[in-house]
Amino acid sequence: MDHHFVQEMDLWADIPSEAARRIIQGAADSFALRGFHATTTRDISASSGLSPAAMYVHFSSKEELLFEITRRGHEDVLDLAETILGSDGPPDRRVRDFVYAFSRWHAEHHDIARVAQYEIAALSDDHAEVVGALRFKISQLARTAISEGVDAGVFDFADVPGVTTAVLSLGIDIARWFRPGGHYTPDGVGHLYSVLVLRMLGYEGV
Amino acid sequence: MDHHFVQEMDLWADIPSEAARRIIQGAADSFALRGFHATTTRDISASSGLSPAAMYVHFSSKEELLFEITRRGHEDVLDLAETILGSDGPPDRRVRDFVYAFSRWHAEHHDIARVAQYEIAALSDDHAEVVGALRFKISQLARTAISEGVDAGVFDFADVPGVTTAVLSLGIDIARWFRPGGHYTPDGVGHLYSVLVLRMLGYEGV
Repeated sequence: MDHHFVQEMDLWADIPSEAARRIIQGAADSFALRGFHATTTRDISASSGLSPAAMYVHFSSKEELLFEITRRGHEDVLDLAETILGSDGPPDRRVRDFVYAFSRWHAEHHDIARVAQYEIAALSDDHAEVVGALRFKISQLARTAISEGVDAGVFDFADVPGVTTAVLSLGIDIARWFRPGGHYTPDGVGHLYSVLVLRMLGYEGV
Repeated sequence: MDHHFVQEMDLWADIPSEAARRIIQGAADSFALRGFHATTTRDISASSGLSPAAMYVHFSSKEELLFEITRRGHEDVLDLAETILGSDGPPDRRVRDFVYAFSRWHAEHHDIARVAQYEIAALSDDHAEVVGALRFKISQLARTAISEGVDAGVFDFADVPGVTTAVLSLGIDIARWFRPGGHYTPDGVGHLYSVLVLRMLGYEGV
């Protein structure tokens, strides 16, 4: 069990059945490798080490697995946004700490993040709506903190929605290009991006 | 024929056969909508308005179509990078103009760009190598211009490879979130991002 595997298993920690946890991890690995549409039930069972029938005991369909992965990924990021951006500190520190954690999350969970970002079109309408609501909350938390920084005079940028889009986009795209064992560590990307974002926001002294 | 369609047809302008141009555009639309793996030959023929047999007259496989789309997309961006970044102007102006054009390109060609960015794993090894070489050239041109700006004292950032990754990443991810008729126009995103990138690079006065 490698480090990567352990980290992703945290996202499924509240699922009581060990078999269900193995299936969801197997599905996440398969979707990340082949894409949702090209993944078969057989791929998921091979990757989880369980029989194809075992999948249907715990999940009604491949789409339900995609939804569980996507929802849990977004909820984990929302937790992080609520904890950091919703805290009492000054807005520049909250934004910096959020960008560090958000970037680091997308590097550490790059497989889950790719599934959660690029397969949204494969979700049912009801499920897409649930995920859309989570995305909206994350975005609103970021926008509010940036706006508070502008009001406090520590940030200086007129187009707050525009810069918020760029800040979140920069973090999300890490999931596309990040390779474990490459030039960057998750910690290194987090530090780099927190400096670059403070600069984008017109924060003095970075 | 809408504006979007006309713009994308430019990428196929040097293909002599009109049928082949319709097939490659049909394939691009289908891959962007369903993903490469979930697209069938029948989807491509329906989208191009030609028979399934017509596809095989011009392209040997679905993978060859993916390669043609991906290669042409990357060559178009490389042209733009060579023209703008390889010109004689001061590095800050070259980088600003490149970020504008690169961002605008990913908004205007968001469908092609999504296919070209997110389906690379579906290319054959030989084809992936060709595309990898184009990507490397684009990245080197950007890195060199940024480095020249640092040397000239108009930019100020120690980690040139890191900030180059961020600059390109910001532009590429536009293909994921951009929606025509949404809050931003391609021109608007281009302007916004050229300012944000100059700030990231420590350029004074933006």
